[in-house]
Amino acid sequence: MSRFWNERLQQLTPYVPGEQPQMTNLVKLNTNEHPFGPGEAVTQAIREAADERLRLYPDPDATRLRQAIADWFGLEASRVFPANGSDEVLAFIFQGLFRPGEPVLFPDISYSFYPVYCGLYGLESRTVALDEQLRIPVEAFQPPNGGVIFPNPNAPTGRFLDLESVERILVANPDRVVVIDEAYVDFGGESAARLIPDHPNLLVTQTLSKSRSLAGLRVGYALGQQHLIEGLERIKNSFNSYTLDRLAQAGAIAAFRDEAGFRAGQQAVIEQRERLNAGLEALGFEVVPSRANFVFCRHPAVSGAELAAQLRERHIIVRHFDKPRIEQYLRVTIGTGEEMTALLTALDDILNSGEVTA
Amino acid sequence: MSRFWNERLQQLTPYVPGEQPQMTNLVKLNTNEHPFGPGEAVTQAIREAADERLRLYPDPDATRLRQAIADWFGLEASRVFPANGSDEVLAFIFQGLFRPGEPVLFPDISYSFYPVYCGLYGLESRTVALDEQLRIPVEAFQPPNGGVIFPNPNAPTGRFLDLESVERILVANPDRVVVIDEAYVDFGGESAARLIPDHPNLLVTQTLSKSRSLAGLRVGYALGQQHLIEGLERIKNSFNSYTLDRLAQAGAIAAFRDEAGFRAGQQAVIEQRERLNAGLEALGFEVVPSRANFVFCRHPAVSGAELAAQLRERHIIVRHFDKPRIEQYLRVTIGTGEEMTALLTALDDILNSGEVTA
Repeated sequence: MSRFWNERLQQLTPYVPGEQPQMTNLVKLNTNEHPFGPGEAVTQAIREAADERLRLYPDPDATRLRQAIADWFGLEASRVFPANGSDEVLAFIFQGLFRPGEPVLFPDISYSFYPVYCGLYGLESRTVALDEQLRIPVEAFQPPNGGVIFPNPNAPTGRFLDLESVERILVANPDRVVVIDEAYVDFGGESAARLIPDHPNLLVTQTLSKSRSLAGLRVGYALGQQHLIEGLERIKNSFNSYTLDRLAQAGAIAAFRDEAGFRAGQQAVIEQRERLNAGLEALGFEVVPSRANFVFCRHPAVSGAELAAQLRERHIIVRHFDKPRIEQYLRVTIGTGEEMTALLTALDDILNSGEVTA
Repeated sequence: MSRFWNERLQQLTPYVPGEQPQMTNLVKLNTNEHPFGPGEAVTQAIREAADERLRLYPDPDATRLRQAIADWFGLEASRVFPANGSDEVLAFIFQGLFRPGEPVLFPDISYSFYPVYCGLYGLESRTVALDEQLRIPVEAFQPPNGGVIFPNPNAPTGRFLDLESVERILVANPDRVVVIDEAYVDFGGESAARLIPDHPNLLVTQTLSKSRSLAGLRVGYALGQQHLIEGLERIKNSFNSYTLDRLAQAGAIAAFRDEAGFRAGQQAVIEQRERLNAGLEALGFEVVPSRANFVFCRHPAVSGAELAAQLRERHIIVRHFDKPRIEQYLRVTIGTGEEMTALLTALDDILNSGEVTA
């Protein structure tokens, strides 16, 4: 704390990201990164952009990237807003499109950055409790509110909400922006992007950090009707004209053109997820049905904290949230087949070693 | 305008960056980019970082980059805050370290993003008029205020304020943060970084976009005592955990290690600036003494708008600000020797063609 911090800063509670350990030889299953790197076409495009043109500012509107994303979704480019990771996109939404004075609604078990944004921009919030099976209670997202946001599939649960239910939430909130945060949608969900023409209040956000293997590049985007996209552009242009550097634009464009690489990575993750599910259940875990690149699971006999600590001793890092309702759970990122084998072997060892206490 | 925009968004007046034309064969002297690209060590470091590790999140604290910057300045790493361009650094300062309710002070002729940030974060502002020679009036930066900021050298004037005067402003405002925006300091100014140990209210901001030839990479930073840096980290971690991608971190680290390349580029710009000054004066221009990588000049007989338009017809783009007190001026970025020759030849042609009207 410093006397130079203004009142807003003094009251902030920052987000705590998953650990990014610098040590090697870890099985890192804690931040939902893709187990395989981006395709050669992507790294090659970046290397080609790393030349003397770096002295020049990037295109502030990322025009070619917008078009590449628009082409992928079959949308007009005016319905696409790219920025420096979907976290930046979300921040702009909270800042410009959610309403102060009425609570922003999101699930009680969800992405823990949402309440942080509310604190940063002076918004109220109200959490909506997931049901006992950790499902989103559709009918609870009702006016009055300052906006609605939830991940789909939800994180850290992995559960997917069908688009018919999403549409019911859109219809129930015609005067407020409803954000579907689709960071994980490519692993078995279905995007709400196809609802955009019928719903002026819908924004869909996605990221290249998960299914496109580019967490290190920081690119995300929003999809929605032009009037919402224009609002985000105005916020961006009042904050930082050039949020996306030349290399990020080049790499992201190449990623959207590498459909074969994208599909192969998607399929590999889904296969390992189903294999991990089966393995965890064989060990006695309850596994929440996941459509994401992670699974959320708990063991009836051993606490999540204990399991996470024991795994860490074996150089395997998973995510444990010390929060009400989910402190028993682990969130495990889907890794390579080898990593999933290492995890299952370690869990088997832990559960049968007699070291753990129920 | 959309009914979904909140009140803050509706009232925004975004910043308008200098044009980034996509056409080639232009002499582009409008956005103060460096005439030469970054050194081979920098592009090589980026190309080496463009591999399968892009699937992993970057270090959210940019630890190695902080250390490289700290080493350059002989500061502790805890006194360095890097982010996605110095515009992002400035935004965080306005958001967390300037005080609502009292006006933020900055010069009337200065970087036009400052009032935009005030609008974005609900801050009041008051401009301080430069004197007739476009010098900063040191005694005018007095409390009460919500914070003080000015570029040094100032933009678009290019004038440098000596550090003794900077220190008088710091001493006059012991309870408010004073920001010295040193985007252009490496072209003949002197950094206020050496005042940091004595002044808890001082923040210095710099960028890699100008003297380090990396406008396309988006890296900037603040330097200051740890309590201010911690405040900026809290804002950042409430906004976007990962503002700097892996490639930007790798390239920026390499840039700070390439002292020879940096010095050579610096010297080349200073030489061309002095040559341009002499050439402009020979053509009858009044040139403001510049310590930046641009000059600010006017011709007694021809308007700035007219000159800018005539230069554009000759495929030379310079910056003209249609604003009170400076509408007669042009801001011209220092380019290569060839570009400076092209500019001077074109101006000679324009002034002596009889086409222009006084």
